[in-house]
Amino acid sequence: MRRVAVGLLGLGTVGGGVARLLLGEADRIARRAGKRIELKGVLVRDRAKPRSVEGVSDLLTTDPHRLIDDPSIEVIIETIGGTDRALEWILAALSAGKHVVTANKAVLAEHGGLIFNEARRFGRAVAFEGAVGGGIPIIQALGVALAANEIRSISAILNGTCNFILTSMDQGGLTYSSALAEAQARGYAESDPTLDVDGTDTAHKLAILAQLAFGVNVTIDQIPRGGIDRLQAADVRYAAELGYTVKLLALARLSAAGLTLRVAPTLVRRGTPLAEVGGAFNAIRVFGDAVGETLFYGRGAGMLPTASAVVGDLIDVVVGRAELTSNILNLWSSDRGVPALRPARPDEVRSRYYLRFTIVDRPGVLARLAHVLGDHAISIASVIQHDPGENDGPGSPVPLVIMTHQATEAGVVAALDHIDTLDVVYAPSVRLGVEE
Amino acid sequence: MRRVAVGLLGLGTVGGGVARLLLGEADRIARRAGKRIELKGVLVRDRAKPRSVEGVSDLLTTDPHRLIDDPSIEVIIETIGGTDRALEWILAALSAGKHVVTANKAVLAEHGGLIFNEARRFGRAVAFEGAVGGGIPIIQALGVALAANEIRSISAILNGTCNFILTSMDQGGLTYSSALAEAQARGYAESDPTLDVDGTDTAHKLAILAQLAFGVNVTIDQIPRGGIDRLQAADVRYAAELGYTVKLLALARLSAAGLTLRVAPTLVRRGTPLAEVGGAFNAIRVFGDAVGETLFYGRGAGMLPTASAVVGDLIDVVVGRAELTSNILNLWSSDRGVPALRPARPDEVRSRYYLRFTIVDRPGVLARLAHVLGDHAISIASVIQHDPGENDGPGSPVPLVIMTHQATEAGVVAALDHIDTLDVVYAPSVRLGVEE
Repeated sequence: MRRVAVGLLGLGTVGGGVARLLLGEADRIARRAGKRIELKGVLVRDRAKPRSVEGVSDLLTTDPHRLIDDPSIEVIIETIGGTDRALEWILAALSAGKHVVTANKAVLAEHGGLIFNEARRFGRAVAFEGAVGGGIPIIQALGVALAANEIRSISAILNGTCNFILTSMDQGGLTYSSALAEAQARGYAESDPTLDVDGTDTAHKLAILAQLAFGVNVTIDQIPRGGIDRLQAADVRYAAELGYTVKLLALARLSAAGLTLRVAPTLVRRGTPLAEVGGAFNAIRVFGDAVGETLFYGRGAGMLPTASAVVGDLIDVVVGRAELTSNILNLWSSDRGVPALRPARPDEVRSRYYLRFTIVDRPGVLARLAHVLGDHAISIASVIQHDPGENDGPGSPVPLVIMTHQATEAGVVAALDHIDTLDVVYAPSVRLGVEE
Repeated sequence: MRRVAVGLLGLGTVGGGVARLLLGEADRIARRAGKRIELKGVLVRDRAKPRSVEGVSDLLTTDPHRLIDDPSIEVIIETIGGTDRALEWILAALSAGKHVVTANKAVLAEHGGLIFNEARRFGRAVAFEGAVGGGIPIIQALGVALAANEIRSISAILNGTCNFILTSMDQGGLTYSSALAEAQARGYAESDPTLDVDGTDTAHKLAILAQLAFGVNVTIDQIPRGGIDRLQAADVRYAAELGYTVKLLALARLSAAGLTLRVAPTLVRRGTPLAEVGGAFNAIRVFGDAVGETLFYGRGAGMLPTASAVVGDLIDVVVGRAELTSNILNLWSSDRGVPALRPARPDEVRSRYYLRFTIVDRPGVLARLAHVLGDHAISIASVIQHDPGENDGPGSPVPLVIMTHQATEAGVVAALDHIDTLDVVYAPSVRLGVEE
């Protein structure tokens, strides 16, 4: 059986999983790839650090060029993450004539154009199934299996840390900070969780999905994004009362008005498949014009789930399919042969909205708010206004929750701007979109 | 742009969808395939019958050999279904040097060995994404994307007709026959629904999934199968009381004991993704040793969803990937290079079980049944025994529902054989497996 030599950059969570599969399941992988895959070297920062992967210690090097410049190595697997060194080494590997497999969403979202131009120039494949949704084969689905479709929308839970926190808030009634502490204690959140909880990680992944599904080159600065870090337990509770759960969604929607992309905590109706995605799982709902609704669910992160995607990509490269896919998809290209999609404007984007106001508890206030909403063509579907607690006297602040019918984003923003200036309103209003 | 001529056999539901996509979305498909796909002819039984697909009328022929023997045609798409003529024409197309795309689960499940041997002999690809799960890309997932994994289990809802009926029974409280009538009225069940409701269709699809996931050649006679046609509304209701819903599941499970395959109405715990699959949708839960739990969800049948899979396959063939996949998967081969899996025996298969007995309403009966279960090492997790209705006197038949802890299938079968002979038992007991 022919052999294919590969080099692995990084031996962290994902890299460790890849090494474990390549060394521990070599026979299985050889059968599936038709060639024996030989892990020839692994780039690490510190060769002396103890490693849990059996058989890896003889392969370690601290010099990336020992791998990138080795002419016998045909594929470089990049699992170091981040953008600077990863970009440098990916480009060096391509220019050395190697195929690249990466699970790095940040480097693709920020430098996809450069990477894929170089891949085309040197005639090499870049495979990246592990970059979005961990082990869930969403890149294959959008790039290959659903190729007959025009994708109309994507609604996705792409960050397991956030979903774990939101599940704890929803099912356990925890506050955001207690839920985050629990996620950290259980290893689902890093000690600095900023890029997860502020929506940056989800936006990186959405930029990649948007490239595949719609052929648009967007940087994350072009994606309006909100995180879960300012979400209040009260809103999760009211959403539940209304029959919804709150999820951090990556949303892409194609309409006559154009393409809408956003990352935001969003109400999802209970009993729909996306609402039932709990804990650290990910799911991607894709609506295609032919296939209709589909959903892809699984572990969005972790050592072996992501390694499953990376080694799957490696097999795809070794079999020869990845090169064909790379050629035909022509990703991050300035030359797509189709007109670019225009972003939809806020006056063209329609959704239902969840609104929470903090108002003075006295007669006539609901009518005043309803009047402002009506002025902006926003009609009310339901209202939650509980009796004030027994310690609250008249005139104390109480929450008022309104679920609207379909309304434009522009109208809702304008109405809330107006409402927040009223003297009967105590605090800035809260607005969340609704996914049906 | 180069052209690829294709011939389509059949213009029913799936064939009509394929023709509509190929004729109506030709530019999109050319972009995704890198070549213009030219639908050169369509085999129909009756050329005079009115057709709803625009532009198809000039392409019709009643002679399959006008397509199969046309040397300019490179790919034959088979959508006629059934096994006799479909097999003949698929084999003829392969021997004429054409690739084949089919959505026909029956012909693959029953004649996969013959078809793939011929495909290998003539060096051609056979692609069949549409054969299982309609538009859900489960064949790609098992054959390509999850290739790094050893698949440990599959639990799948593969028949939309059955799932629609079960959803109506569960949520609407309908009997089986009313639910079937509603499914027929809404076009989700055929006038003769036998092959759907008796589990044959699901078993065909499971045989294909088992080939892909485990490399086993099984015919449906080797798959124990039960349908939903004898399921009683009472069991759906008691399952709901216990926190479960009933689904017709295709099950494949690999354990130290061997491989278990079966099709059976099964209790699925509410709140898990599979339990929430409603109406005519399909879903396939796949557990892989690296990726862990994944789920693939979508429309399992219908004109455009299945056509999405068929045209996706066609693009895969035209790009050149399908041939590589066919070569490496080596499906339905007698020469796999790995030992065949042995079927697990009933004394090795463990599950929880839902049991319903129809017993005499008098003291001591539960104790007698519990004693027999205990003799077979079956312990009881919970019991439902309602008070008899006010019109029922002492000694009248009442249902007794028992949920067991983990037990072997052999033990449960032996215990029920014994219990059904007792004089306090009025009717044969009901046994359903439980999927956690």
